[in-house]
This record gives sequence, structure tokens and C-alpha cells, in this order.
Amino acid sequence: MQGLQRRVWARIWEVGHEDPRRVIHSLKVGTSLTLVSLLYLMEPLFKGIGENSIWAVMTVVVVLEFTAGATLCKGLNRGLGTLLAGSLAYLIQYVANETSQVARAIFVGAIVFMIGAAATYMRFIPYIKKNYDYGVVIFLLTFNLITVSSYRVDNVLKIAHERFYTIAIGCGICLFMSLLIFPNWSGEALHNCTIYKLEGLAKSIEACVNEYFDAKLAERKDETSEDPIYKGYKAVLDSKSTDETLAFHASWEPRHSRYCYIYPWQQYVKLGTVLRHFGYTVVALHGCLRTEIQTPLAVRLLFKDPCIRLAGEVSKVLMELASSIRDRRNCSPEILSDHLHEALQDLNTALKSQPRLFLGAETNPVNNRNQQGSSASLQTVKTDTSALAEWRSKRASELPPKEGGEMRKMLRPQLSKIAITSLEFSEALPIAAFASLLVETVARLDLVIEEVEELGRIARFKEFNLGDEIPITCEKPRVDVSSNHLPTHGIE
Amino acid sequence: MQGLQRRVWARIWEVGHEDPRRVIHSLKVGTSLTLVSLLYLMEPLFKGIGENSIWAVMTVVVVLEFTAGATLCKGLNRGLGTLLAGSLAYLIQYVANETSQVARAIFVGAIVFMIGAAATYMRFIPYIKKNYDYGVVIFLLTFNLITVSSYRVDNVLKIAHERFYTIAIGCGICLFMSLLIFPNWSGEALHNCTIYKLEGLAKSIEACVNEYFDAKLAERKDETSEDPIYKGYKAVLDSKSTDETLAFHASWEPRHSRYCYIYPWQQYVKLGTVLRHFGYTVVALHGCLRTEIQTPLAVRLLFKDPCIRLAGEVSKVLMELASSIRDRRNCSPEILSDHLHEALQDLNTALKSQPRLFLGAETNPVNNRNQQGSSASLQTVKTDTSALAEWRSKRASELPPKEGGEMRKMLRPQLSKIAITSLEFSEALPIAAFASLLVETVARLDLVIEEVEELGRIARFKEFNLGDEIPITCEKPRVDVSSNHLPTHGIE
Repeated sequence: MQGLQRRVWARIWEVGHEDPRRVIHSLKVGTSLTLVSLLYLMEPLFKGIGENSIWAVMTVVVVLEFTAGATLCKGLNRGLGTLLAGSLAYLIQYVANETSQVARAIFVGAIVFMIGAAATYMRFIPYIKKNYDYGVVIFLLTFNLITVSSYRVDNVLKIAHERFYTIAIGCGICLFMSLLIFPNWSGEALHNCTIYKLEGLAKSIEACVNEYFDAKLAERKDETSEDPIYKGYKAVLDSKSTDETLAFHASWEPRHSRYCYIYPWQQYVKLGTVLRHFGYTVVALHGCLRTEIQTPLAVRLLFKDPCIRLAGEVSKVLMELASSIRDRRNCSPEILSDHLHEALQDLNTALKSQPRLFLGAETNPVNNRNQQGSSASLQTVKTDTSALAEWRSKRASELPPKEGGEMRKMLRPQLSKIAITSLEFSEALPIAAFASLLVETVARLDLVIEEVEELGRIARFKEFNLGDEIPITCEKPRVDVSSNHLPTHGIE
Repeated sequence: MQGLQRRVWARIWEVGHEDPRRVIHSLKVGTSLTLVSLLYLMEPLFKGIGENSIWAVMTVVVVLEFTAGATLCKGLNRGLGTLLAGSLAYLIQYVANETSQVARAIFVGAIVFMIGAAATYMRFIPYIKKNYDYGVVIFLLTFNLITVSSYRVDNVLKIAHERFYTIAIGCGICLFMSLLIFPNWSGEALHNCTIYKLEGLAKSIEACVNEYFDAKLAERKDETSEDPIYKGYKAVLDSKSTDETLAFHASWEPRHSRYCYIYPWQQYVKLGTVLRHFGYTVVALHGCLRTEIQTPLAVRLLFKDPCIRLAGEVSKVLMELASSIRDRRNCSPEILSDHLHEALQDLNTALKSQPRLFLGAETNPVNNRNQQGSSASLQTVKTDTSALAEWRSKRASELPPKEGGEMRKMLRPQLSKIAITSLEFSEALPIAAFASLLVETVARLDLVIEEVEELGRIARFKEFNLGDEIPITCEKPRVDVSSNHLPTHGIE
């Protein structure tokens, strides 16, 4: 019991320790709520605004988000929705005013139904859903509140006014807190997130190639979450929705720098897409480490140096891109350096110097460089036809499989291994695939560079100076910013 | 102007035409709102409940979601949050009651600050964020409303009661509408989504291999969204958040079948993860179609039949898995059929029958089967060193690059192409990578089968019967269900 309690407290402390901005945000929410409560608690303020100040409390709870962009987006949507709904409700009440009580009830009911259905339907339209979903919901809510209330209360205009004022006060406090007191910018989060992803990919590629050529590392084949390769590209793979949300919120943020132009957040999303595709190649590369058919290590070692060198160059380029984005400067014009080209050439030479490897297992490849190592490569993967036959006969006797699900489950994992490893595939096939994927990363790297340069051009990054070239990479590792993104309920 | 109007109307119509359930959902929202408005509009009901019935209207707007699971989740979270907040607020008011007016104001302000900060901080804890985020927000909201109101109003218990009752009425209407009137189940959406993804991957692999070996298709290298390969795996790649949300909502849904056990929605999420990894291999396969260095078509054609056959078998297995999930039955025990094994063997034979191909470009591979085709393969990719030198000199004269960003941008795309295609890579490398990735899909297929069988076991799918074997695939293509998922604002 005490152990559980200690763990809960440790977890709570950790959340704040990971990113102290969370603590600050919590305090900001508390402060805003206290401020807005003063409207109710302090006599003179209460007399001025009245009981409806409760709407302001609601607004603060709902609108104050972690980042300034999200707060602005919600605040403005809320304001706009309320204004539109108030106007429409007033118009409708003006029409309905003349009729009898019963007719009016029917009219109000019908209009509530129609607007409710129409507004909900609107939310399915992709454009509305993407940009104004929250506004539509607030519109629907305010409209219903005012229209329904108007049936009993005569002065609808007063309700509409008060609701609007109090919401405006609430929004004002939220904007003040989120824009001026320790603001967290969505744009900055997106910026850091992009840098983090570039660095992750760089580390991933290096770790991947190192593991491929390292006998000791290759042995422990457990795909844990601690795997540095997986950790590197993990953040990239499922980044689509986070990127889009951050870019959307960032587009609402005022520019907090000296330039007064529209900052190209969408370019970050584009860069994110290219990085995701780059990431898929890294996943495929990682897959080469985990397949059943493997080129014997002795053969692999022949290509170790050029592959490691090429991966190192790719990784260096990614790091340089990351640091250029971090410093908001254009990347070095020498970014696609001679080194990369030389590394490619080396790999090519290495591949061509071993033509006999690609002859397939039948001809028993003898490699010239390290004779003692090649003895390992002489054992071709055995055709385990007897195992397959055995498996088949077991399978046949098992049919019809009643209650045999568990059994089958236990047998199954071996099947595909049999099917694949029993074939005498050319031993060179896996290393060829690995090399090819590595070359593919260079091609994809080009697309990444293109998008980063495009970003530098649109965002008017400062020009490259020779003095900037030393990349600073010894900073403390960044937190994965996406985990700060709270779900946005717009609870009123 | 008229054209725009027509387009807007066409778009609106299309949204409903794509999935008529959207229209039904909109009508359901309209009906619920009208029903809940009756509380206010009808004299006897109004007298019973009073002015607070406005909370019920709010609840309906906020809680009624597209799927039953989401509605249940929000409704219960809302109920629980309100109940807890009401209790706590009552307790606090009880404590504060004895003190003077000023001391009480300070006390209320302090408590609002503390609870506000603590609740917001709680939302960052992953477990709370995942399961009870909405409940915490509602708790905070209700707590503030009641605590602040209590300063002016004496009978806090009455406020708390009324708020709770009206919210319960609102939730009741929402649950009635979403569970009993044309319900949309998150679980079903997840189920269909999984089938859709399996089918998409199957189509993608087939299209990919066909394009690789088809000269005409390979020529138009535009990666449009209409590309059937891209369309097939698109839904899989970014499915993580959708899957998790659907599974989360599905876990709140009551089982609508005869079995009364906890349905393994998390297994669908697991299957989704495996499918995503399968998808990454397909992306890499797709990447082989787009790289700069390509094995000449004449050489590729040597492996056409075995590759197409293997892809066909993989695709058939995926289709069989999809149809087994659709019919909620275990998949055929013969799913990893001899055909797949034979296809692998064929590919292996084909690879081994062309050993000279893997000798690299220097030795001018002559293939024996189609002499006229090999003339194409004789031209090795040229070393375009002159182009590289030219590019370099241009580059040098351009430094320091003032206003040269545009120019550089235009020059750049050629660099990497030069760097890669100028190397005389073994022509066999790309086809080796392609074949290797295809074999990799078979290995990954095994993981997919494993997860589907696990799903069948936990979800107690019905046993496989021979008569079921004919897969039904001629149904009308499914809509991408994830597009129905509206953002969940919990606006009160």
C-alpha cells in the first residue's frame, strides 16, 4: 500500500520534473480562476456585472490552454460563435414575438431542431471541421441557450449582451495569462519538435548501421522500447496529427519576433511529411536487422567500413540541418559535401570488389580479404524440408481443429520461419537490400534538404556564415514536446 | 459567384452522400435538442425543474457524440465529475460557513486557486489524461461554479442538486438517442477500419508489384493522391491515434451481442500496430519504384512472374484475413498455403538462375533468356563527372550566396541525382532490394497472422468451416471511417 503511494507520488513529481512548464501552466490556471472569481467575490464588481459573471468562470476553465495559439484559437472561435448565435437568436425572437404562446413554443422547437441538425451536419464538412469546429459548437450552444431562455425571459437582448460581455472578460483574462505571463508558443513547440525529429533520425541511422555490423549488439534481438534505434524514429512515425495541430494553433499566434510577415508553419508540416517518409526508410533499414535470413557476419564485415561511413555522413547532414533550424539560419551550402559523395563511391567500390558474393550460395562464395571469417559464410542455410514435412503431417492430423486454437497458435510462429529459411536464398540478398536502402536514404535526404532550404527561404532565415558552421550538439536532450498537448475539450 | 455557390452545395451534398449516417446523426442531435427544450417550453415540466433546465440543454450539445461509446464515455465522465465536485464544494462550503464575509472571500479564492492548479496538473499525468481528462475538466468547472456561486447564494446544496439532476436528464436523453436510435458503435467502426486497412494493404502490394514490372505504368512517375498504391497504405500509416480513440470509446460500449465478456478492443490496437509496421515495408517497396538508380526493365522482367506470384499470394492471405475478421470466424488453417511457399521457391530459383546479373556493371551482364531485351541492360548508368564538375564550379562562383537562395534552390535537386546516378552501382542492387523487401513482407505477414489468430482466440470467433472459405470481396468499397470522427470538445 505504501509502495503504491510512493509510486503515485513519484509519478506526480516526475510529470513536473520532465517539463517544469507544466507546473507553471497549472499555476496560471489557478491564478486565472482566482482572478475571475473576484468578479463574483468583490462587491463593487459583482454589482456591475451581476450573476452572469459565472459565464466568465466557465470561459476561463474552457479556453485557457497550454499554448498561446490554442488559447487564441479557442478564445476567438468562442467569441465569434457567441456573437453570431446572439445575433441570429435575436433575429428569430424578433420574428417569433408577434405570435401566440403555443405557436411560439412550436416555432422555437422547430427552429432548435433545424439549427441543431444543420450545425451538426456542418461539422462534418472537412473545411469547417478543420478550422471552425469549436466555433460551430459554441454557436449551437449559445443559440440554444438564448432561444430557449427567450421563451420565458422577455429581454433576450440583455441575456445575449451579458453572455457576450462575460465571455469577453473571461477570454480577456485567458489571453492575458497565456500571451503575456510565461507564454508557451505552439510555433516554438513545432520548431523544437522538428529539430528533435531530425536529431532522432540521425541517431537512429547511426545506431542501426552500428548494430548491423556488430556481432554483440546483433545478438540481443529484443525489440524493447529502450532500443536506441526505435527511440530515434518513434517520434517521427506518428507525428502527423501532432504536427498538424501545432501548426494550426501556431497559425493563430501573433509573431513574437521583429518580422511582421506570415510565418510559414505549413512548411513545417510539409517538412514533417518528408521526414515521416524518411523515417519509413529507416524502419525498413531497421527491419533488415530483424529478418530471418541474414547475410553471415563475416560477409557483412566486408562492407562494414563504407556502410558505417555513409551512415555517418547522412547522420552528419541531418544534424547540420537540425542545428541550422535551431539557429534559424540557412544550412551550409556545402551540406551535400564531397564526403557524402566519397562515401557513396566507397560503398560502390566495396560492392564491386566482391562480385562473387552475388553468385548465390550454390557456388560457395570464397572471399579473399579475411579467409578465417569466410568459413562462417560457407555454411549455407539448410533446407529444412524434413521439418516442414513434419509440421504438415501434424497439421493434417489436427483437422478439424476443435479446441486446437491454442495448439495451433504455438505451432504457427515456426511455419513462416521454415518457409523462408528453408530456401537457399542468395546470401548476398540481405546485404544488397541493406546497402540499397542506405543509398535510398541518401535520395530521401535530398528531399529533406530541399524542404529545409525552402523553409529557410520562406521564413527568411539568416544567411549562412562560415563562423556558424560548428554545430552545437552537446545540449541536454529535449523532451518530446508532443506529450504536453492536452486534449482540447471546450467545456463551457 | 454562382459557380462557387454550386460547388459549396455540391460539397455539402457529398458529405452526406459519402456516409448517410452523418445525416442521421445530425437529425438525432436536432431531435435531442428539441426534446430537451421541451423541459423549458412546456409549462408543467418547467414548473417541476425550473430555470436550471438550461444545464440539460448544454449537456445535450456537449455529450451527444457520433458514436455510442464516445457518448457513454463523456456522459459518465460528466456525471462522475459533477458528483465529485458537488460533494467537495459542499464540504468546503460547510467549513467556510462559520467565518466572516471577508475571510470567506479569501478562503474561497485560495481554494479556487489550489483546486484549479492541482486539477490542471493532474491532467498532465498520462493515466489521467488517457482515461479521465474530460471528467477532471468537468470536475473543475462544476467545483468552481458551485463554490463561487455559494458565496452569494445560501442554498448551495440546491444548486448542486439541480445541476446534477439536469445534467442527468441531459445525459439520459443523449444515451437514449445514441444507444437506441440508429446507434453507431465505435467498436464496429474499429472492426471495419481494420478490415479496410487489411484490404488496402493487399491492394497496395499487388499494385506496387504490377507497376514495378510494367513499363507503361512506371513511366508516369507522379505521386498523386490517386495513386492506387498510396491510397492502399495511406489509411494504415497514420492510424495510431484513430485506432486508440476508437478502442478507448469502444471499451465503454456495452456488448451488443449474445456474449457477455469483455471484448478485446486492445487487441485491435495491437493488430493495428503490426499492420502499421507491415505498411512501412510496403512504403519501402513503393520507394523502390521511385528511386533514381533502377535496374533496367529488361533485367527486371526476368523476375516478373515469381515476384507477381509472390505478391499475389501475400495479397490473397491479407484478403482472407480481412474476410475472416469480417465474418468473425477464425481464418483458414491453410492460410499459409503451399502456394505461398511455392512462390517463394520460384523467386529463389529465378534469382539463382541469373547469377551473372549480380556481378555488377563492369562485367556487362548478358542474360540468356531474352537477348533483345538485354541490349538495354548493357548500357550502364553513365558517370556524369562532367556535370558534377560543372555544378561545383557554378557553386564556387556563387559564394558568398547573397540573394542566391532561389538559384541554389533550382540547382540543388540535381546534385543528389548526380551523386547517386554517377556511380556505377551494380544493376542488380535495386532488384535485389525489391526482392528482399518482398520476402520481408512475408515475414511480417506472419506477425499479422499471429495477431489476427490471437484476436480470433480472445474474441472467440467462430471456428473455421470449409464452406466459409470462399472469400466475398465484391462488396462496395468501404468509406474511411476515421473521417467521421468529430473532434470532441466537451463544451458545457
